[in-house]
Amino acid sequence: MPQLPEHPERPAAAFAGDPVFDLHVGGKMEIVSTVALDGRDDLSMAYTPGVARVCEAIAAQPELVADFTWVSNTVAVVTDGTAVLGLGDIGPAAAMPVMEGKAVLFKQFGGVDAVPVCLDTKDTDEIVETVARLAPSFGGVNLEDISAPRCFEIEQRLKDLLDIPVFHDDQHGTAVVALAALENALRITERAVEDVRVVISGAGAAGVAVARILLAAGVKDLAVTDRRGVLNTSRGDLTPVKQSLARDTADLTGRTGSLADVLDGADVYIGVSGGTVPEDVVARMADDAVIFGLANPNPEVHPEVAHRHAKVVATGRSDFPNQINNVLAFPGIFRGALDVRASAITEGMKLAAANALAGLVGDDLSVDYIVPSPFDPRVGPTVAGAVAEAARADGVARV
Amino acid sequence: MPQLPEHPERPAAAFAGDPVFDLHVGGKMEIVSTVALDGRDDLSMAYTPGVARVCEAIAAQPELVADFTWVSNTVAVVTDGTAVLGLGDIGPAAAMPVMEGKAVLFKQFGGVDAVPVCLDTKDTDEIVETVARLAPSFGGVNLEDISAPRCFEIEQRLKDLLDIPVFHDDQHGTAVVALAALENALRITERAVEDVRVVISGAGAAGVAVARILLAAGVKDLAVTDRRGVLNTSRGDLTPVKQSLARDTADLTGRTGSLADVLDGADVYIGVSGGTVPEDVVARMADDAVIFGLANPNPEVHPEVAHRHAKVVATGRSDFPNQINNVLAFPGIFRGALDVRASAITEGMKLAAANALAGLVGDDLSVDYIVPSPFDPRVGPTVAGAVAEAARADGVARV
Repeated sequence: MPQLPEHPERPAAAFAGDPVFDLHVGGKMEIVSTVALDGRDDLSMAYTPGVARVCEAIAAQPELVADFTWVSNTVAVVTDGTAVLGLGDIGPAAAMPVMEGKAVLFKQFGGVDAVPVCLDTKDTDEIVETVARLAPSFGGVNLEDISAPRCFEIEQRLKDLLDIPVFHDDQHGTAVVALAALENALRITERAVEDVRVVISGAGAAGVAVARILLAAGVKDLAVTDRRGVLNTSRGDLTPVKQSLARDTADLTGRTGSLADVLDGADVYIGVSGGTVPEDVVARMADDAVIFGLANPNPEVHPEVAHRHAKVVATGRSDFPNQINNVLAFPGIFRGALDVRASAITEGMKLAAANALAGLVGDDLSVDYIVPSPFDPRVGPTVAGAVAEAARADGVARV
Repeated sequence: MPQLPEHPERPAAAFAGDPVFDLHVGGKMEIVSTVALDGRDDLSMAYTPGVARVCEAIAAQPELVADFTWVSNTVAVVTDGTAVLGLGDIGPAAAMPVMEGKAVLFKQFGGVDAVPVCLDTKDTDEIVETVARLAPSFGGVNLEDISAPRCFEIEQRLKDLLDIPVFHDDQHGTAVVALAALENALRITERAVEDVRVVISGAGAAGVAVARILLAAGVKDLAVTDRRGVLNTSRGDLTPVKQSLARDTADLTGRTGSLADVLDGADVYIGVSGGTVPEDVVARMADDAVIFGLANPNPEVHPEVAHRHAKVVATGRSDFPNQINNVLAFPGIFRGALDVRASAITEGMKLAAANALAGLVGDDLSVDYIVPSPFDPRVGPTVAGAVAEAARADGVARV
């Protein structure tokens, strides 16, 4: 069905022959029926008059919607187009190719039916109320590429309003995979998470979430920096989210100063900021350092440079070893949450996902293999199983 | 993947063995990828980093979203669950089986990817603003099972706000198929549409729309009744929509009174009201009368009764001849509108759809065959072609 534009004068024709654009003609997904519609009898079961009995049953017992519709296997992938990849605020229409890509990854790696929802508003209140009104149509909400700090409030308010999982993947997907990678990196360098000194540069969506999951995993000495240096409450310029994070990180250790100051002697550096860390700064990290430069396409520390001063190196890129890629997390996390009809995604479920991911590496662990491949078929089911179990333990599972 | 609930204590288990419920387990639709994702190279084209170039192209030239995403082939099927089938206000969750059914019909008969959107609000303003915010995600909006009179305002305001087709199927789908059926009924009874006296009972979504399309098709003598009798502006109890309709119908002919009064001597009766018309009233219609009793599951005039007093009889049921079924219209109408990226669905496009449908019956016309079967493979493409041509003629086509 998809075909190149027929009319050479159409703007799209200018992209013909470019493999990426050729692949995108007509989009990357479609909806198909899972029931036969071969004649009037089929029609009278899948549609009127038969369908009326299913509607009546759900009206009488609302939880049946999870059994007799596709809702319990669906996720809305919601964006306002304000923080798309590294491209920034490109708007809802231009965000659609990413949301479709996300949707096909959801299906391929988690068996989840994901629907792209690109919103024509950037207003926090409007986004919250719009998603809340859509909620009966979906089993979960994956927030995507919404800029900080609005993403924090939007996610928190939707979690408070809704009884289905709400998950901002730019935060928690990154955080889960980064934690899994760090756990394995520390196995290699034979250190305990409680004993390492960690520095994160970047206090946007990913930086805040990585910091939070590291704290939950037991990291004691953590400093987070933004462009003006270490977050601590002696600074007068912090947003509420940064203030709260400062109290739980550098305020406890008294660390202050610049990124270079706190990297001096640090064991672990996680960059989610963009920009570049000079080699002489990296060189002052502790022995057997761990460096994750996650900015795309240009890591904060190029792997070649990082390897001169660190034992374990990871990036967000697929053309270097140890790719920290959200696709390792979100399909399995939602698969597990949907399988038990979870009412939320808890901190315990995220930690369980990270531990499950880390565990998949097993005895194959090496400096070049600290996270599994996205194409490892064990990833989705293993993460899903761990997440479902944690949902039960945390009391948010409904079946 | 869909399976019966594992746990016999689950409420859903009570429905096991019922063919309609068995068919509905897990829902009736899924999302599938149309691109291969077999390795890192595929991932880097369909997702990061390759997808970024497609996003940038759309950000620079917004119309490219129609070429390189699925948006231009999609329709949101939007309901608030207030007027579902004959069940009334059963809410958004219980409406989902109908919306999924609609979606699978959209795909089967029109090749359109339709996404069910069941809204957790009945407020007119909130529905309008919610759908408007979703609009970048879809190529069209099919409003469904929203109660009158709110449906009229919601559709009109969305048509004013959006540059994609907005179509309330309960109104216009019914109207298009009813007009097609009437055109063929009048061929059998050898009368011109301008010369017949028509009565419609019911001034809800379907009644108003059927009246409007009959006027557009040339009917001169039309009376519409609600529970209190013929709509005319001498009555003080009419909503604005009914007032407007009264001015264009009974006000012009001076007809007043009850349904029985105006059916006396009428050529055509179209029931979209529910309730029952007594046989002695039907008996007073003109010779060679046409009776469409479209209420489901109980037609206003049972076909056996109708046939004693009318030449041509139609219902909304699949177990009698001449089923007036929306599925004959909406898939082809949206297919045609999407094919030319129409900015709206005009009156001309609806009339073209009706004429195309009527024309498909051709020389096979008989009292028991005035509309084609939904399974006639010519229906979708023929309607789509006529609608696309009318869109071009009306200046709303964009390609």
